[in-house]
Amino acid sequence: MATTLITGGTVVSATGRAAADVLIDGETIRAVLEPGSTLLGTDVAASVDRVIDATGKYVIPGGIDAHTHMQLPFGGTEASDTFESGTRAAAHGGTTSIIDFAVQTYGQRIEDGLAAWHEKAAGNCAIDYGFHQIVGDVNEASLEAMRRLPDEGVSSFKLFMAYPGVFYSDDAQVLKAMQVSRDTGMLTMMHAENGPAIDVLAAQLVEQGKTDPYYHGIARAWEMEEEATHRAIMLAKLTGAPLYVVHVSAKQAVEQLAWARDKGQNVYGETCPQYLYLSLEEQLGAESEQWGHFEGAKWVCSTPLRSREERHQDAMWQALRTNDLQMVSTDHCPFCMKDQKELGLGDFRKIPNGIGSIEHRMDLMYQGVVTGEITLERWVELTSTTPARMFGLYGTKGVIQPGADADIVVYDPNGHTSIGLEKTHHMNMDYSAWEGYEIDGHVDTVLSRGRVVVDGDEYLGDAGDGKYLKRGLSQYLI
Amino acid sequence: MATTLITGGTVVSATGRAAADVLIDGETIRAVLEPGSTLLGTDVAASVDRVIDATGKYVIPGGIDAHTHMQLPFGGTEASDTFESGTRAAAHGGTTSIIDFAVQTYGQRIEDGLAAWHEKAAGNCAIDYGFHQIVGDVNEASLEAMRRLPDEGVSSFKLFMAYPGVFYSDDAQVLKAMQVSRDTGMLTMMHAENGPAIDVLAAQLVEQGKTDPYYHGIARAWEMEEEATHRAIMLAKLTGAPLYVVHVSAKQAVEQLAWARDKGQNVYGETCPQYLYLSLEEQLGAESEQWGHFEGAKWVCSTPLRSREERHQDAMWQALRTNDLQMVSTDHCPFCMKDQKELGLGDFRKIPNGIGSIEHRMDLMYQGVVTGEITLERWVELTSTTPARMFGLYGTKGVIQPGADADIVVYDPNGHTSIGLEKTHHMNMDYSAWEGYEIDGHVDTVLSRGRVVVDGDEYLGDAGDGKYLKRGLSQYLI
Amino acid sequence: MATTLITGGTVVSATGRAAADVLIDGETIRAVLEPGSTLLGTDVAASVDRVIDATGKYVIPGGIDAHTHMQLPFGGTEASDTFESGTRAAAHGGTTSIIDFAVQTYGQRIEDGLAAWHEKAAGNCAIDYGFHQIVGDVNEASLEAMRRLPDEGVSSFKLFMAYPGVFYSDDAQVLKAMQVSRDTGMLTMMHAENGPAIDVLAAQLVEQGKTDPYYHGIARAWEMEEEATHRAIMLAKLTGAPLYVVHVSAKQAVEQLAWARDKGQNVYGETCPQYLYLSLEEQLGAESEQWGHFEGAKWVCSTPLRSREERHQDAMWQALRTNDLQMVSTDHCPFCMKDQKELGLGDFRKIPNGIGSIEHRMDLMYQGVVTGEITLERWVELTSTTPARMFGLYGTKGVIQPGADADIVVYDPNGHTSIGLEKTHHMNMDYSAWEGYEIDGHVDTVLSRGRVVVDGDEYLGDAGDGKYLKRGLSQYLI
Amino acid sequence: MATTLITGGTVVSATGRAAADVLIDGETIRAVLEPGSTLLGTDVAASVDRVIDATGKYVIPGGIDAHTHMQLPFGGTEASDTFESGTRAAAHGGTTSIIDFAVQTYGQRIEDGLAAWHEKAAGNCAIDYGFHQIVGDVNEASLEAMRRLPDEGVSSFKLFMAYPGVFYSDDAQVLKAMQVSRDTGMLTMMHAENGPAIDVLAAQLVEQGKTDPYYHGIARAWEMEEEATHRAIMLAKLTGAPLYVVHVSAKQAVEQLAWARDKGQNVYGETCPQYLYLSLEEQLGAESEQWGHFEGAKWVCSTPLRSREERHQDAMWQALRTNDLQMVSTDHCPFCMKDQKELGLGDFRKIPNGIGSIEHRMDLMYQGVVTGEITLERWVELTSTTPARMFGLYGTKGVIQPGADADIVVYDPNGHTSIGLEKTHHMNMDYSAWEGYEIDGHVDTVLSRGRVVVDGDEYLGDAGDGKYLKRGLSQYLI
Repeated sequence: MATTLITGGTVVSATGRAAADVLIDGETIRAVLEPGSTLLGTDVAASVDRVIDATGKYVIPGGIDAHTHMQLPFGGTEASDTFESGTRAAAHGGTTSIIDFAVQTYGQRIEDGLAAWHEKAAGNCAIDYGFHQIVGDVNEASLEAMRRLPDEGVSSFKLFMAYPGVFYSDDAQVLKAMQVSRDTGMLTMMHAENGPAIDVLAAQLVEQGKTDPYYHGIARAWEMEEEATHRAIMLAKLTGAPLYVVHVSAKQAVEQLAWARDKGQNVYGETCPQYLYLSLEEQLGAESEQWGHFEGAKWVCSTPLRSREERHQDAMWQALRTNDLQMVSTDHCPFCMKDQKELGLGDFRKIPNGIGSIEHRMDLMYQGVVTGEITLERWVELTSTTPARMFGLYGTKGVIQPGADADIVVYDPNGHTSIGLEKTHHMNMDYSAWEGYEIDGHVDTVLSRGRVVVDGDEYLGDAGDGKYLKRGLSQYLI
Repeated sequence: MATTLITGGTVVSATGRAAADVLIDGETIRAVLEPGSTLLGTDVAASVDRVIDATGKYVIPGGIDAHTHMQLPFGGTEASDTFESGTRAAAHGGTTSIIDFAVQTYGQRIEDGLAAWHEKAAGNCAIDYGFHQIVGDVNEASLEAMRRLPDEGVSSFKLFMAYPGVFYSDDAQVLKAMQVSRDTGMLTMMHAENGPAIDVLAAQLVEQGKTDPYYHGIARAWEMEEEATHRAIMLAKLTGAPLYVVHVSAKQAVEQLAWARDKGQNVYGETCPQYLYLSLEEQLGAESEQWGHFEGAKWVCSTPLRSREERHQDAMWQALRTNDLQMVSTDHCPFCMKDQKELGLGDFRKIPNGIGSIEHRMDLMYQGVVTGEITLERWVELTSTTPARMFGLYGTKGVIQPGADADIVVYDPNGHTSIGLEKTHHMNMDYSAWEGYEIDGHVDTVLSRGRVVVDGDEYLGDAGDGKYLKRGLSQYLI
Repeated sequence: MATTLITGGTVVSATGRAAADVLIDGETIRAVLEPGSTLLGTDVAASVDRVIDATGKYVIPGGIDAHTHMQLPFGGTEASDTFESGTRAAAHGGTTSIIDFAVQTYGQRIEDGLAAWHEKAAGNCAIDYGFHQIVGDVNEASLEAMRRLPDEGVSSFKLFMAYPGVFYSDDAQVLKAMQVSRDTGMLTMMHAENGPAIDVLAAQLVEQGKTDPYYHGIARAWEMEEEATHRAIMLAKLTGAPLYVVHVSAKQAVEQLAWARDKGQNVYGETCPQYLYLSLEEQLGAESEQWGHFEGAKWVCSTPLRSREERHQDAMWQALRTNDLQMVSTDHCPFCMKDQKELGLGDFRKIPNGIGSIEHRMDLMYQGVVTGEITLERWVELTSTTPARMFGLYGTKGVIQPGADADIVVYDPNGHTSIGLEKTHHMNMDYSAWEGYEIDGHVDTVLSRGRVVVDGDEYLGDAGDGKYLKRGLSQYLI
Repeated sequence: MATTLITGGTVVSATGRAAADVLIDGETIRAVLEPGSTLLGTDVAASVDRVIDATGKYVIPGGIDAHTHMQLPFGGTEASDTFESGTRAAAHGGTTSIIDFAVQTYGQRIEDGLAAWHEKAAGNCAIDYGFHQIVGDVNEASLEAMRRLPDEGVSSFKLFMAYPGVFYSDDAQVLKAMQVSRDTGMLTMMHAENGPAIDVLAAQLVEQGKTDPYYHGIARAWEMEEEATHRAIMLAKLTGAPLYVVHVSAKQAVEQLAWARDKGQNVYGETCPQYLYLSLEEQLGAESEQWGHFEGAKWVCSTPLRSREERHQDAMWQALRTNDLQMVSTDHCPFCMKDQKELGLGDFRKIPNGIGSIEHRMDLMYQGVVTGEITLERWVELTSTTPARMFGLYGTKGVIQPGADADIVVYDPNGHTSIGLEKTHHMNMDYSAWEGYEIDGHVDTVLSRGRVVVDGDEYLGDAGDGKYLKRGLSQYLI
């Protein structure tokens, strides 16, 4: 097997940084060593097959995006990235693992839902991938099936308090599923919005002729995210289940998470780049020649963008600093404007919900380092180390240490990245939610299990490089 | 320089663990590498001068005790451990660095206070040592002098809201000192108890004939710790100073810290083993043939032991889990019963305040791993990694990575440690505050900058091995 | 019309007390005047038809019990007090008005539900009565009908977050009903327990053979009261509806109410005597020769009795002092053990939920004055003045002032009341939930609209004395 | 003695209103009676000496201003209202009682301080007056003397956490004084600002040339009000003293009060009209031809005006609604611009602190009823009923009931009051802090102990009408 040395860089971990070289043997990190020519008399650089010069650059564990939805059927269409296109885009952006959501739909067996996702992904991925299980139909059979998921390497499942008639679980179902979570140690992931209430508000808005994309955010009021978050926390407390709330966007929801954590509960939350950077006001103001006010559909996602005047964005950054939120994922769920988003012309409820960001997460979060929102170490922790620990991958992923997979990104703080129109990104979308964002850094080199899959902006990998990740139980619980 | 390989163990960091060998070259860690015989064709174990077999054991960064008071003059006597005896005891217990407190007394120049402590420590320490600066007299001259401390490697100073007439600073002084903290980035450490109020209560108790050691804890009511903690937080907020509250013992004080952190303030706290394990009720019940009820003097420290019925101890463990407290130090400040503690016979106010624990911190905290209070990783984080980050030592200390000092402890989870009478410990005390505690683990081998200073229970080092640590600014601020 | 003078007593109001005489003319208070023989030259006592000597006694506005369920169909049986027996018992206990709950069942028209309750009550009541409306089926028709309720003198309605399949409203229904509350000013009353979750727990307990009455309280965990309280608050915040939470028993639910009130929301809560005095532990320990462990069924009510060890009872008293709870009602819903409670032998879920206290509320709360839990003024406020203000009766009821109905109780603080077995109370129950309670006071004389209906322990009134109270909107909102 | 009937009005109390007549006999209310011509055969109106027609008007208990400083020596000058001018102005504004602060200065005996205030007031007041005691020198002698104050009718004392070198008490002194409060039941009143810290900030601002009045508010940062409020609360908790915080202006201070009250502590707070209506931003913008930027001195008071952008004013109104604040006083402490305020030209620290509002409190608070901030009942409660209860005057003052002093205001909601320049007010000030405020109501008639002292805008009373009020202990404690 080939050996590689990444030399001259600054290895960054969740707790600090070191001037260190990384020696890779095949797919695995073999050693982390002081930079310099010899080790026990051996000239290391001269002894390896390949040397990557990382001088002046950061050497970080590859990004882990723990919340993606490749080719998800939703709202009468399907998320526009396949596992192939989506993971390739991820690789370009410095993300070397994803955890996607296998879906059990209403009436379906969990085993069949999971099998279907294996089929979609197998042989198509540029990087390694794992699965969470969406449980869309909590019943006696699925509760039994859930208990077998950890053996399949699926150690977390997601429930929805939103989307009645689609993925929605009522509180009786949530309670029963959380009992499985408590018994097995699986992590309960929660889409925490009060769906029944939101659907009433949405219908009333449409009745009033308020059909523009902006009203999506009005209907999905922060009060209903806060409420559902509290409810999920209390059901978790009642059952003893560990809880992870996905795509937190409301500052009041964070207050609930902090409140529960201050009491010692195993409660966690992720936010997404869109809740850090984008706002409801901007969505309201969006207009284009092509789409008019429907331009705002580009940023229709759930939870929705929040008001900048109410300072939700500041609160999300703060929560990332204080560890009241532990991770940043993308909730990558892309839809094109043409044929997809435009299904909701005249009725915002029919706009497929989702934003595509998988390619930009590492960059967007690095920009938070540049602007002083987070430290360099926290960047690595939020995007890689904690995702690995939270979802049972640590040791193999999320850290640069001997024995770990050689998933490594060489990131250049002196580089630059312009996020632009669809032509310049690799996601299968006909627009970018991030057009115009400028990043003071650049993903230079990406290794996935020892193989350089991205060099500069060139993709060197193959579909099928990525392997399925059998995950263990969470290593993050307190 | 000699090379050493620690092989076969599990290297534990703040975020996880790995089966890895550690290669040491002289005083420094050279590499962390996958266990196994060869690296790039070299048989590593065969190539080094010394091999330490850590099979079945944990390999952790040496403990950092960030709160010690060697030979501190206090209450008409002096803490009974010299830098020599105290640091040797520390080494026995797996602690390889201390940060002691240099003292500026009232009327003294800061420079002179610091110089005096250098003199006490230099050439006497078994392990590396740094200094915080106690500022006992905030005035124009000392405020100026404080600004020069970072150049001396002293990046933190402590103020006292307690002890009027001794170390006490009033709020005007605290405010001015915190402005220096904000300007320089130095960390403000605070003894947060309302001294003026406590002294009134203490005097009233003595007047009422309540002179036993137990009343020390009654006088130092949790309300006055909570209050001072809040006050320190608000003064820190007003000035923008980062704040670190020492020896937190009241659950309500933790609530204040959590409240401030939830608002995004740079506020931190440490607790000590005595606040995790011991209680006011036990102090009340303490009685011996030799000392009668004065037996309780053994546990007179400030802040005091707290009520178990009120569950302060549980709250401290919880706060360690939730990171509302970030560190565990000892506040090592030993006094013998004979000639020292007994100064307070008949008046608890005259009992020198302090407990000696420097030798037992790593063990006592490991026992928390055994009982499930904290994870193995959190043990390392609380006792080594965060202390290093908090106080500007990370990279050199607190982590096992290339380039770091080879301060390493091999800890045996299958060993056992009985903490007993004075004969069996190495601290210069005629009693143990921890008599009878049994630990399901054992410090096997301790390396200080590459040198094995403790092997089994044998001390192999020399006074003067320890060097002064010039510390940088905190690496932990959010 | 006859005139009456109540003389020599201490008139107590919500804010204070005064030595004052009360002059009644027919059904109405005509004047409150300084005690003494003459007014503008008229010897008052000599000029009236009847003089009631209240020397040494308290003269208070008659009690208003705002939460009763006379002859409520529930669990396959019917609450054992008719409007006749229940209101007579109320009169004996110093309560001169009740607000009972008219019920709209699933599938029924609101108008028909209300009409049915009018029919039950009309001509049967010893004291005045009003109605809240239970809305058991929120739909387009009932939402419309609700808007007409204020014209009927029904200015409040109750929803249930508990009892799926019976009275339960889901969050979409709650939201729509609250919008009516906001639009009309009607008060939303809420049974705040998460019914779907509780039903799962209850079923699991029964499956495990845990069928004793005690498990009723285990199934109805405080977490699910706290959760539903928070949810109701957030839905009220979203809609702008004023909210009144009935029968609060968990201290954590009170914390939620206080949290909302501190933010300025119009949120209120009542507790009941059972949550102040009785506990889950006592229910667990209850045993009798006749009933064995099923004895505990006597205290099966929802919300359930709470743990004394967790100090919920203390928290309820405290909340009454701090006005985080505003009122004390009974939730009077009596069932006999024979034929009724015993329906739940072998399955606690089938025990009709309810406790009868209407006769004892004024006494039990007065005992709180004796023991120092509340002030004399707060007693009047909690049991009469605030109920009147909260539910739109103030001026007519709840206060001793000119123009008000002469609903007056002369209460003797030197009297005594022993609450005992069924023989000594007037409620139609074959047991007493309050057996053995001793009260250091006594209801001496009760006037209902000027007529003495209770004198000593003798009932002097007639069924049909009581009139229907058309209530206005709440006079208590902030 | 003469008899008076106030007829046709709406009598408003803290809990509601009634169409009622009030019969006065001499100085005392004799009866409250239903409006109408005859009572027990007597034509009431025809039988009295005087009839006051209150048709269409509110009849309320006279205002009680519990926080005034007549002729207070402060900052080298003296508050410009004498007891004569100040109480006459009060009467014009519908205030019929004041509680002024007798001052014990440093080194003085409390008895002498109190005697001096008696001398200033006796024979000079237009309305009744009582005293709180400022304790400016807590020592053994004054602590003893404090215990005798209740016998003098002084049931409350004030301490200052601000003004070092003047009135300041340190925490040891506060603690000792609060122990007296606990023992005697006297209420501890607190000026809660951290004086030592504020003085540092103020000196630094002046050093930087920031000497304008505006910087007074910058120096007195809300953080230091919040801090001192918390500290006072904790000292009160420790001792068991009831606490009343004066002139609360920061929303964060209110949060502390609410926090303590939610825990059941006897903690209260007042705010003042200036903190409800005026703001720091307006003070910053103030400028006049005569005074330039020094114009802002007109509103220099302590605590200072707060930022409107931070919404402190909204928070004060909300706290009045939620009863987190219980009262509105004026802190009336007037100084003229000429010769007084102008002492601080060039150094804001030398501006005498204070605003004059005694004449406008009832009007300004009534305007809050007009704008919907508070209810009519709450107006009466905040300005009269609660002040009477809080400070031991209830029954004699604060309520319209038989036996109470006939201190009554007839207030016309259809009248109008323009608050203007010094010519149109009766306070001894050469400016008005309230110039330009328009009130949609008018004080028509004011009775003090049965005597009409203000009729329309005419003063009919005499200096010396007012009597000293011996107050009892607080009747408001929970």
